[in-house]
Amino acid sequence: MASPQQSSSFTVTPWIVKGDVDYDKLITQFGVQRIDDALLKHVKKLTGEIHPYLRRNIFFSHMYFDKILDAVEKKQKVYLYTGRAPSGPVHLGHIVPWLFTKWLQDRLNMHLLFQIPDEEKVLFKDNLTTEEAERWTKENILDIIAVGFDPKKTKIFVDTEYAGHMYKHACAVARKTTASTAKALFGFTDSDNVGKYFYSCMQSVPAFLPTVMEKKKTLCLIPCAIDQDVHFRLTRDVAEGIGFPKPATILCRFLPALTAGAKMSASETETLVATTDTPDVVKKKIMKYAFSGGRNNLEEHRKYGGNPDIDIAYQWLTFFEEDDAKLKKVYNDYKSGKLLSGELKMILVDKLNTFLKKHQAAREKAKKNVEKFMLRD
Amino acid sequence: MASPQQSSSFTVTPWIVKGDVDYDKLITQFGVQRIDDALLKHVKKLTGEIHPYLRRNIFFSHMYFDKILDAVEKKQKVYLYTGRAPSGPVHLGHIVPWLFTKWLQDRLNMHLLFQIPDEEKVLFKDNLTTEEAERWTKENILDIIAVGFDPKKTKIFVDTEYAGHMYKHACAVARKTTASTAKALFGFTDSDNVGKYFYSCMQSVPAFLPTVMEKKKTLCLIPCAIDQDVHFRLTRDVAEGIGFPKPATILCRFLPALTAGAKMSASETETLVATTDTPDVVKKKIMKYAFSGGRNNLEEHRKYGGNPDIDIAYQWLTFFEEDDAKLKKVYNDYKSGKLLSGELKMILVDKLNTFLKKHQAAREKAKKNVEKFMLRD
Repeated sequence: MASPQQSSSFTVTPWIVKGDVDYDKLITQFGVQRIDDALLKHVKKLTGEIHPYLRRNIFFSHMYFDKILDAVEKKQKVYLYTGRAPSGPVHLGHIVPWLFTKWLQDRLNMHLLFQIPDEEKVLFKDNLTTEEAERWTKENILDIIAVGFDPKKTKIFVDTEYAGHMYKHACAVARKTTASTAKALFGFTDSDNVGKYFYSCMQSVPAFLPTVMEKKKTLCLIPCAIDQDVHFRLTRDVAEGIGFPKPATILCRFLPALTAGAKMSASETETLVATTDTPDVVKKKIMKYAFSGGRNNLEEHRKYGGNPDIDIAYQWLTFFEEDDAKLKKVYNDYKSGKLLSGELKMILVDKLNTFLKKHQAAREKAKKNVEKFMLRD
Repeated sequence: MASPQQSSSFTVTPWIVKGDVDYDKLITQFGVQRIDDALLKHVKKLTGEIHPYLRRNIFFSHMYFDKILDAVEKKQKVYLYTGRAPSGPVHLGHIVPWLFTKWLQDRLNMHLLFQIPDEEKVLFKDNLTTEEAERWTKENILDIIAVGFDPKKTKIFVDTEYAGHMYKHACAVARKTTASTAKALFGFTDSDNVGKYFYSCMQSVPAFLPTVMEKKKTLCLIPCAIDQDVHFRLTRDVAEGIGFPKPATILCRFLPALTAGAKMSASETETLVATTDTPDVVKKKIMKYAFSGGRNNLEEHRKYGGNPDIDIAYQWLTFFEEDDAKLKKVYNDYKSGKLLSGELKMILVDKLNTFLKKHQAAREKAKKNVEKFMLRD
């Protein structure tokens, strides 16, 4: 596969993210909108607060999020839709958009459709078997439920199981999507398998299900990482022509890899923290691998201070420390040299282990509640 | 779309059949086997007779039909699979493989899976709506049931409804099928939609369902017109690699168009007889449109005789008159000039109207029995 969203220094596709991602460039390349102050004001009016991910520019761009807020203001029903392709353990990078999705659900009282495209990784990864995809589907669903979505307003479905309700609409998308378009959007060549060509049509469908389920045109907001936007660009291009409203997206940056790459990779376990990692493993990974913005030695660090802007432990805190004042103090203390790298890392380790303790307990409890969430059939 | 199975004088793809089809050339082009005397002998041993379609070379080629007969002889369970893509009324050309399929079911006690790929025509015909496909699905199912399949051993399913049981296996096929392969087999270009690229994978799946349903490797025999063979060539190429036996096919010629083209076209109603045509309409169509092998005037016809080999009324009788002796007499009488074109046509009209009277009564009765046949999710 070639990579159409490739610049000299970075690549962002739904299947490959590498290099030093320039998010400003992505906004232009993907033709999406920056989240501006007017939008944040509107969010605050409707929710009473501005989520840290919005304040901190982690969710930084969108398409039609303004229309979603207008609809919410008019008391129109709006659905959320996000997803998870199961090919390995869930890590903290996956959790980021889900945490934000839960906040939207709670604050705006929205129904959520959670897609598990279990066929995606089978089609895109040569070495993943259907059996492994099935196993990871079961495991990953526990993590989704553990995030705390409202069981009365959340439905999780697995593509290969739920295809009886999806395939027809996927064909409607496919009918309007030429192989040329798929090549241009996703960088496919003639050597790629035909399942890849078709797959994006299935990822479009949950954006239409709110309209199918409500039996009237119903808006849909998709919170996800920006690498997924290309799928929904395709969805937006065909939606109205087949009788559905264009879906809105709200897009986040990637939680950087511990080793300071663009995005954590599920295949390199030293660059990520899995939701099932024990406190010791978390500590070991952060201490050993988290790229440091500190100085070469204690004396220099005290004298010149560290650089939080490139320090991964600090960057991760911006995703997991909700308190702005605490975060600001860490930033200043690290920059002044008062806080050492090891100390900064321990702040992160404690934060993550507190988060994971709660998540792992919820994940254990989720085992009993799976069927409450599943759309089977 | 380009047409890969195109020679100077004819084209045969699942979507276009035109020109004067040379079936001998197709055997070579498609890499299938001729049905030979040894095979017919084996059929007779197992069924007690040789169906007229086999005697008359209407079902004329196959892949692995010999293996199917061996399995039947060893009392192994074998499934039949055939299908109908709904985009208009069923005509007599469609019925031909179904009549033969029923004979196989009855004589060899086989289960039958009948696929309705309602998405196919939507993907391949720009002017067909999903609603029309739904309407024709319902209508066509009545014709299928009217053929007289055993309700205890026949299951009909509609792709967009049954996709929950199919899509996973279609993805397994898709994973092994590159866009290059689809282009080479089906003549697609980059301007074709991605649904066309994926579609053949769905047509492969019913060949695997016997194995899924029986929970062990189970052979499948597909009786169909030869234009469909290309789909199953793809199926055979991937089957064993994904854990299923290669499907066998037994392939028939096309019932020629009344106006003497290669195949009746559902869009040109004067070239076909629909199963719902009234006796008057049948008579009018045959009398007016059936291409005649007769002479220019009565005198010449009596003197030189007609040519049954190019006469469409006679050709159709080879599909619908089961009695060899009667058919032989018509052939000889026509060739000698004793039988006139109008008289020959009336023999066909009577034969078809007798067939259709019975079919239409069965079709009416089928309305009450649809659910006995349907696999609904």
